[in-house]
Amino acid sequence: MGRVTTRVRRTRLDVDTGGRVERTDTVAVEEPLEIRIGDEPLTTTMRTPGDDFDLTIGHLLTEAMLHSAAEVGTLMHCTDLDEDGSPTFNVVEVTLAPGATLHRAARERTETISSACGVCGSATIDAVRTSSRYAVSEDAVVVSPRVLAGLPEALRARQPVFDRTGGVHAAALATPDGELLVVREDVGRHNAVDKVVGALARDRELPFSGTVLVVSARASFEIVQKASVAGIPVVVAVGAASSLAVELATQAGITLVAFARPPHLSVYSRPDRLLGGA
Amino acid sequence: MGRVTTRVRRTRLDVDTGGRVERTDTVAVEEPLEIRIGDEPLTTTMRTPGDDFDLTIGHLLTEAMLHSAAEVGTLMHCTDLDEDGSPTFNVVEVTLAPGATLHRAARERTETISSACGVCGSATIDAVRTSSRYAVSEDAVVVSPRVLAGLPEALRARQPVFDRTGGVHAAALATPDGELLVVREDVGRHNAVDKVVGALARDRELPFSGTVLVVSARASFEIVQKASVAGIPVVVAVGAASSLAVELATQAGITLVAFARPPHLSVYSRPDRLLGGA
Repeated sequence: MGRVTTRVRRTRLDVDTGGRVERTDTVAVEEPLEIRIGDEPLTTTMRTPGDDFDLTIGHLLTEAMLHSAAEVGTLMHCTDLDEDGSPTFNVVEVTLAPGATLHRAARERTETISSACGVCGSATIDAVRTSSRYAVSEDAVVVSPRVLAGLPEALRARQPVFDRTGGVHAAALATPDGELLVVREDVGRHNAVDKVVGALARDRELPFSGTVLVVSARASFEIVQKASVAGIPVVVAVGAASSLAVELATQAGITLVAFARPPHLSVYSRPDRLLGGA
Repeated sequence: MGRVTTRVRRTRLDVDTGGRVERTDTVAVEEPLEIRIGDEPLTTTMRTPGDDFDLTIGHLLTEAMLHSAAEVGTLMHCTDLDEDGSPTFNVVEVTLAPGATLHRAARERTETISSACGVCGSATIDAVRTSSRYAVSEDAVVVSPRVLAGLPEALRARQPVFDRTGGVHAAALATPDGELLVVREDVGRHNAVDKVVGALARDRELPFSGTVLVVSARASFEIVQKASVAGIPVVVAVGAASSLAVELATQAGITLVAFARPPHLSVYSRPDRLLGGA
């Protein structure tokens, strides 16, 4: 498997004293991962190596291209070599299980947009939306605000790559009791979410009813969309929420909590799931 | 033009006291922008509305699809309406200037990768790299560490959307004396960079020799690549640098400064451009 961190040379300057120190420094590895379905390239994402199979499964699920990890037959790393003769592991080849079909609707929709200007803007918003198969709004989970407020710190305590580099995002799936089921780190926010979804999907079918998605960064539209497609009813972000994240969470019936910085939480949709009521 | 921020309802909880306050809150607007060349959709990016023409020009330049803003003939917003009858402004149509050609090499290269596993990983890394037309490594600019250390604070002082929302990135292009030539904010890191490049490209041809790109976030591969394609010799990031950002900066001869948090700077490549020498 690829390395998660690597050592590079750096010069550390102190502007006040004029001091310069030459040393090596640990940085997070960022490399492209190409996902192929059979021989055909599907997508390339800039990711931190490791958990590439989770990332692949999670990406296919949260982009609604597959509905179950069982639809993946085999996953294989290409073991090609880089310039130094070391394996790069930067391509994952997916073979679908017999009878499984890749649903490319979300991707192809973009290509079939009418070019008539009268409808183009709304068509574009539709094009980036992937509807969920699950009635997330009906998920009856109830969560304690205190438990939610504790999740960012619990996540932070399990970010060894961030500890070494200060340069990666993290995501987790948690139970309503605050137990972290799976934690993953990545240079990409979306990749971290895909990795946790893919990891849990090995043991459990979608929808992920009653779970909480925790992200170390902001809650953008795409994060909420991935939660919606995976059937996750509660999203907690340490950072801010965007307008479209709030809009989608409201439409999908997802409880969206942002600026989760104890003792405060900001709840932008479905506060009724928080103990104490709406 | 689209709105940059919007008001949403939120419930603010105090976990310690159990208090709940219902109020409206300002969030950064995130909406898709589709860029079209004539009638043909080129790409869709999730961005904060505003400066869409700068974003479009900058994107075409930093992705090496155009080499000069003068190659853009006309830019037009589609003035379609959303569900409420308000204009969305979420599509920009680009008409190229007579004789101008869109260079799609970087995009098409991905599709021509050999599917032979023996070369796939290295081919993938090549596929995400866009070589620059400019000899950035020969840029003789010299910058004072003290000036560089002051740039994050100068940028922070010109982030009105962040002040209101806490939820957007920012980028700036600066002179070696620390003057900010242009500042832009966006929910997307890459968009903020595209916006500043597009804005400056209206007044100045590439390469942007002798300039400094400042980003409020981390320095990833794609940020350094955009700098390389635009001929920007110095990149300063408030956050961490990734492994591939360091690698590309080293290859391209870009001075990469990360963790720019006074009084310290970490310089990962070409420290010789900093006054006081290598």
